[in-house]
Amino acid sequence: MKVSHIEHLGIAVKSLDTAIPYWEKMLGTKCYNIEEVADQKVKTAFFKVGDTKIELLESTSPEGSIGKFIEKRGEGVHHVAFAVDGIENCLAECEANGIQLIDKAPRGGAEGLSIAFLHPKSTGGVLTELCENKNK
Amino acid sequence: MKVSHIEHLGIAVKSLDTAIPYWEKMLGTKCYNIEEVADQKVKTAFFKVGDTKIELLESTSPEGSIGKFIEKRGEGVHHVAFAVDGIENCLAECEANGIQLIDKAPRGGAEGLSIAFLHPKSTGGVLTELCENKNK
Repeated sequence: MKVSHIEHLGIAVKSLDTAIPYWEKMLGTKCYNIEEVADQKVKTAFFKVGDTKIELLESTSPEGSIGKFIEKRGEGVHHVAFAVDGIENCLAECEANGIQLIDKAPRGGAEGLSIAFLHPKSTGGVLTELCENKNK
Repeated sequence: MKVSHIEHLGIAVKSLDTAIPYWEKMLGTKCYNIEEVADQKVKTAFFKVGDTKIELLESTSPEGSIGKFIEKRGEGVHHVAFAVDGIENCLAECEANGIQLIDKAPRGGAEGLSIAFLHPKSTGGVLTELCENKNK
């Protein structure tokens, strides 16, 4: 498996309305996209930083994974997403190496990417997302 | 303030001996530098991923901040480091914007960088490091 770059860094926030102005000032760049991902119960906001992105994640439901994360650990870094080619083969390779898959097959994520999560219990405590842009 | 890119992502690990082979396989790239930062009580290992880096951090003492972090939260993402120019001015700007500084002035970090940390209480729960390469 070869990661070309960090596709994005997911940060759990209580409120996009509060977090977006903070990150715009910190990074010196404007939020360029806000998108709701209904099946993940989140509203996301994106910033471009070099060849990677910051993705802010606000829960749209206390039952969603971001709502639970914030309740347990507070706001902060939620996951790290790596850009790969051939995400299906990468998942098979991860599984063969004993990594526990949260998603057995890729599904649709924000910004039209194919994504799949790996369980942090088998990735050194880092909730890891694999991403592929199949439209490029 | 303008962040050019994510300089690195710091990940707290219990053991570099275990974590390095895992990350080499996950990222598809070899660790290119191992360095001890005595005053931070850590041994670090670096991987290049696109225009950013993964920095693994192993505590050399249970009294160090990484040792305490792992005891409290387990292994995982510890901090996010942003590359800036004019780090002294950036720190002054952060302070003027009400951000609590851990380091009032830059100090020497791994890889010869000038670094300073911002307190996660005022940065949305993300332990944030500013970095400048003054040798470039």
